[in-house]
Amino acid sequence: MAIIGILGGMGPLATVDFINKLIALTPAKQDQEHLPYFLANLPQIPDRSAAILGQGNDPLPMLRYGIDKLNHVGVSVVAIPCNSSHHWHEEMSRQCFAPILHIAKASTLAIKNSGGQCVAILATRGALKSGFYQRELERANIDWILPETMNAQIDIDQCIHAVKAGNLALSANMLMQALEKIGKQNIDSILMACTEIPIAAQHISTHGLILVDSSMELARATVGYALSNNFLHHQ
Amino acid sequence: MAIIGILGGMGPLATVDFINKLIALTPAKQDQEHLPYFLANLPQIPDRSAAILGQGNDPLPMLRYGIDKLNHVGVSVVAIPCNSSHHWHEEMSRQCFAPILHIAKASTLAIKNSGGQCVAILATRGALKSGFYQRELERANIDWILPETMNAQIDIDQCIHAVKAGNLALSANMLMQALEKIGKQNIDSILMACTEIPIAAQHISTHGLILVDSSMELARATVGYALSNNFLHHQ
Repeated sequence: MAIIGILGGMGPLATVDFINKLIALTPAKQDQEHLPYFLANLPQIPDRSAAILGQGNDPLPMLRYGIDKLNHVGVSVVAIPCNSSHHWHEEMSRQCFAPILHIAKASTLAIKNSGGQCVAILATRGALKSGFYQRELERANIDWILPETMNAQIDIDQCIHAVKAGNLALSANMLMQALEKIGKQNIDSILMACTEIPIAAQHISTHGLILVDSSMELARATVGYALSNNFLHHQ
Repeated sequence: MAIIGILGGMGPLATVDFINKLIALTPAKQDQEHLPYFLANLPQIPDRSAAILGQGNDPLPMLRYGIDKLNHVGVSVVAIPCNSSHHWHEEMSRQCFAPILHIAKASTLAIKNSGGQCVAILATRGALKSGFYQRELERANIDWILPETMNAQIDIDQCIHAVKAGNLALSANMLMQALEKIGKQNIDSILMACTEIPIAAQHISTHGLILVDSSMELARATVGYALSNNFLHHQ
């Protein structure tokens, strides 16, 4: 049986949001037409951003523990709906029996396909320090700016933290505050490169900016992989 | 590591709804304070209600496959957010290394604690034929009526089917239609004994009836079990 593996819990609401997208993207009229998945939801994985910044415990042992569980039950592709954890994509891929899709590659492809030329990257400080998004975008000849240069990173930090604490009203306010600063720049889209941010974005009114949702793009890549590899016919 | 096991996919949206309830019921201000879980989401499990009615394939082999995967990863308690599958609770419990919570016991306890004396049972035809809800309620001295006697079971069937097909507007209409018929009876609450029905109920306005949500009661039992058994201190 071909089954999707998901390493989640980073955070728990972002994982649920990702699963909702998987379900919505799957053409199904009854249970049996939906995609099967195993989800290792491990919120105890130490803070990824803090670790990259040298301020917290190393999450890699517990990321490996999760990959090991997915290896154990036998999955055929893995998706990880947490951007910052992709700092360890290579290490996890070496351990994983199945390919691990890359959230930054999926998101960059979406921007490229929609003709985007300059984006603002909304992410954790750790993900930005790691630089894997910047490298992907450069490889695709897409320019980028960072919220820090317009003093908006602090709003992004607070937005992400508020989603993790379940305070969606506060998260929406913080995101609005960031977008007001960022929207004045010469960009054509905003890349929500942290899976908490799309949850906050559900609670704000539109404001004339194109928001690219990294969680949605990873979900599209996952459903696309599963359907094109006939997961539903391998049951 | 003490971890919750969830056997889901019956259906996929009901599973997500259950996880959302788990998260909301957990007092947490950051990722690491949330409960870890491993979810085997297997929508390919044959239709439980049809099987009980003698009209479909036996789901037990695939239910056992799911339990086996949860055994494999080493979970400490199991929750199954699908009422009809509890027809096989005993068979699954014999195979499972961890205790499997019982959705009908959790729901009956909630009705008992709130002083309910007569409920209408909204469930699949299979679950009603199996009779495990009726037996639990009788054991607790709670009277019950079935929608069939007021010609409302057909509306319940269509409500459930519409949620599984992702048509929430239709599901809400069908549930409203059933409640209009059932609300005229002499009952004090409505037991939503199918995990698809609470999803439809989110889309209807209130109507003066107490709705008991079996998925919520299972989530309460699960979080209660995990916290009282110190899952968060066994990491």
